[in-house]
Amino acid sequence: MQGLKLYHYWRSSSSWRVRWALDHKGIKTELKAVSLLDGESESPEHRARNPLGYVPALDTPHGILTQSSAIVAWLDEISSEPPLYGASTWERARIRQLGAVIAEDTQPIQNLPVLHLHSSDAKEQKKWAQHFIRQGLGAFETLAAGTAGEFSVGDRLSWADLCLIPQLYNADRFGIPVGSQDSEFPLLTRIAQACERLPSYLSSHPSRHEPPA
Amino acid sequence: MQGLKLYHYWRSSSSWRVRWALDHKGIKTELKAVSLLDGESESPEHRARNPLGYVPALDTPHGILTQSSAIVAWLDEISSEPPLYGASTWERARIRQLGAVIAEDTQPIQNLPVLHLHSSDAKEQKKWAQHFIRQGLGAFETLAAGTAGEFSVGDRLSWADLCLIPQLYNADRFGIPVGSQDSEFPLLTRIAQACERLPSYLSSHPSRHEPPA
Repeated sequence: MQGLKLYHYWRSSSSWRVRWALDHKGIKTELKAVSLLDGESESPEHRARNPLGYVPALDTPHGILTQSSAIVAWLDEISSEPPLYGASTWERARIRQLGAVIAEDTQPIQNLPVLHLHSSDAKEQKKWAQHFIRQGLGAFETLAAGTAGEFSVGDRLSWADLCLIPQLYNADRFGIPVGSQDSEFPLLTRIAQACERLPSYLSSHPSRHEPPA
Repeated sequence: MQGLKLYHYWRSSSSWRVRWALDHKGIKTELKAVSLLDGESESPEHRARNPLGYVPALDTPHGILTQSSAIVAWLDEISSEPPLYGASTWERARIRQLGAVIAEDTQPIQNLPVLHLHSSDAKEQKKWAQHFIRQGLGAFETLAAGTAGEFSVGDRLSWADLCLIPQLYNADRFGIPVGSQDSEFPLLTRIAQACERLPSYLSSHPSRHEPPA
């Protein structure tokens, strides 16, 4: 697939999911930063790409696609190797289930616009984010106990990991430690350590995409 | 597929999505009500089915599956007719995108536990729900202008409609009119009218599953 352009933000966890899928599959893509902090994502220009005013948005030869879950599923259909959704029907179901625990019931609730509408008080925002992140990661830890090998489902990177790891990054930002010694989620920490060894993890990591100061 | 049991709640919009998919595909399923109001969904018994304490949860011969998006995608893989995800790769992408606008960025934020954590004041809860429902439905209306035929994507019922229509039901509960005369979202109202003619809409509708008083 030629001619893809990804509108993203370095610290957006949904953007990271898509950067990671692209790098894992070796799909060359032009990256275009859209800031979530200075109103750029809310501009008419970006709302024409995504009426919600969010990133990521992938410009394709067919048109613009938004929502990281739809983008990664599409990438997996047009470029199937290495697969991100599992080998069997049931494995795919468990991968989508784990992904949805993060992409539906965790990340959207601790999204910046939601935090800001809940409260203008930074302490209250942190308490809110911690509540939903703990709930989501706790459910993921419980469910993954029945599916995990080296990664969240079996021994291969999947969409479930692409949701989990950026959410752990957010957890750390909100003061929930996920490092190896003090993790509340030991299985998730072990999965994170496996992911951290992948070149596509490193190349897609937010720190590699931070704009110069 | 034999031996399916769906744990659901009559008024839960995520439960309705799954009831609708099952009825549309003609898959016989035992229904088991789990109340969201009296603590039943938060009980250890239900948390063993879904650690998040939410419905729906589908008991299958492989184990229990949660998250309506994962359940419906699995049902579509094991019972492909009539299909709920479109005929081409790009059509599937647009269906998943529209579904995710509701299932990721709208419904989870106006979920009961989120509303209650935001505020104990019913007026403030309503304001919050209306904000996110208007934002989500507005984005859906804009995006569907490029995809809709009789339904949200083309002329066939899809996962996008299964997300949209229960969200319109929630919108109505929170005081956003979506009836034919006064709708803020004329395209969505037209799609709803097409859906309302389907037998599977009627059989899965919350009013058909309300417990006796």
